[in-house]
Amino acid sequence: MDIVNIVQKLSLFNEFWSPKIVGELNNSYVKVAKLKGEFLWHSHENEDELFWIIKGTLLIKFRDKVALIKEGELIIIPKGVEHMPVAEEEVHVVLIEPISTLNTGDIVSERTVENLAKI
Amino acid sequence: MDIVNIVQKLSLFNEFWSPKIVGELNNSYVKVAKLKGEFLWHSHENEDELFWIIKGTLLIKFRDKVALIKEGELIIIPKGVEHMPVAEEEVHVVLIEPISTLNTGDIVSERTVENLAKI
Repeated sequence: MDIVNIVQKLSLFNEFWSPKIVGELNNSYVKVAKLKGEFLWHSHENEDELFWIIKGTLLIKFRDKVALIKEGELIIIPKGVEHMPVAEEEVHVVLIEPISTLNTGDIVSERTVENLAKI
Repeated sequence: MDIVNIVQKLSLFNEFWSPKIVGELNNSYVKVAKLKGEFLWHSHENEDELFWIIKGTLLIKFRDKVALIKEGELIIIPKGVEHMPVAEEEVHVVLIEPISTLNTGDIVSERTVENLAKI
C-alpha cells in the first residue's frame, strides 16, 4: 500500500503521450502522463475516461464542441464519445480508466502505447 | 459532460464526514469530503478505495501501521483492509470508489451516510 505523490511521479519521465501506471483499484488504473501537441481522434467503446489536470490547460475537442480544462479541474469522457486532446503548451494529467483501456481507443497507430510502465 | 473544479466543489459545503458526489465513471463515484477528527474502524469487503489529499494531512491507522498522507498524495486501500482515518486538523479529500461503497464499510452507525448528495 504505497503513498503516491503525483508531482513526484511526473518528475520521473519526460516522454509525451506515454501514460505510466501509478496505482490500481477496482479493475482500473491510475496513470500519469505528459501531453504536448495534438493527439488523434478516438473513442473508448466500453470505458469512461477521467482526465484530471495537474499542470497546464488541456483542450479536448469533441465533434460538437471544445472543452478547456484547467489546472485543478477534471472531466469524465463517457464511453463511446469521440475526442481529441490537444495540449498547446505542456500539460500534466492524471488519467483514471479501466485496465483494458488503450490510449488510442478504437484506433491503432504509431501513437498506440501497449504494456504501460509502472512507476 | 461537466468540467469539475475540485476546490470549488469543496467550497459548497461545510459538514465533516459527509462525502458528496462530483462525478461518475465505470461504476464508481468521484466524491469530495471534508474530514476532521477521528472516524471509525471499518473495511470495505469488495471495494478498493482511493483517498487523494487536496488540503491538509490525513493520518490513516491500519491494524499494523500508520500512514501519513499529505497534500498532493494519494493512497489506495485494498478491499478488506481495516482502516481508520484520523484528521487532526481539517482535511479535504477526493475519494474514488465503487457506487456500492458505504462510507462506514462493514459497520452501520450514526456515522453512516446513505443517499449521498450530488453537487
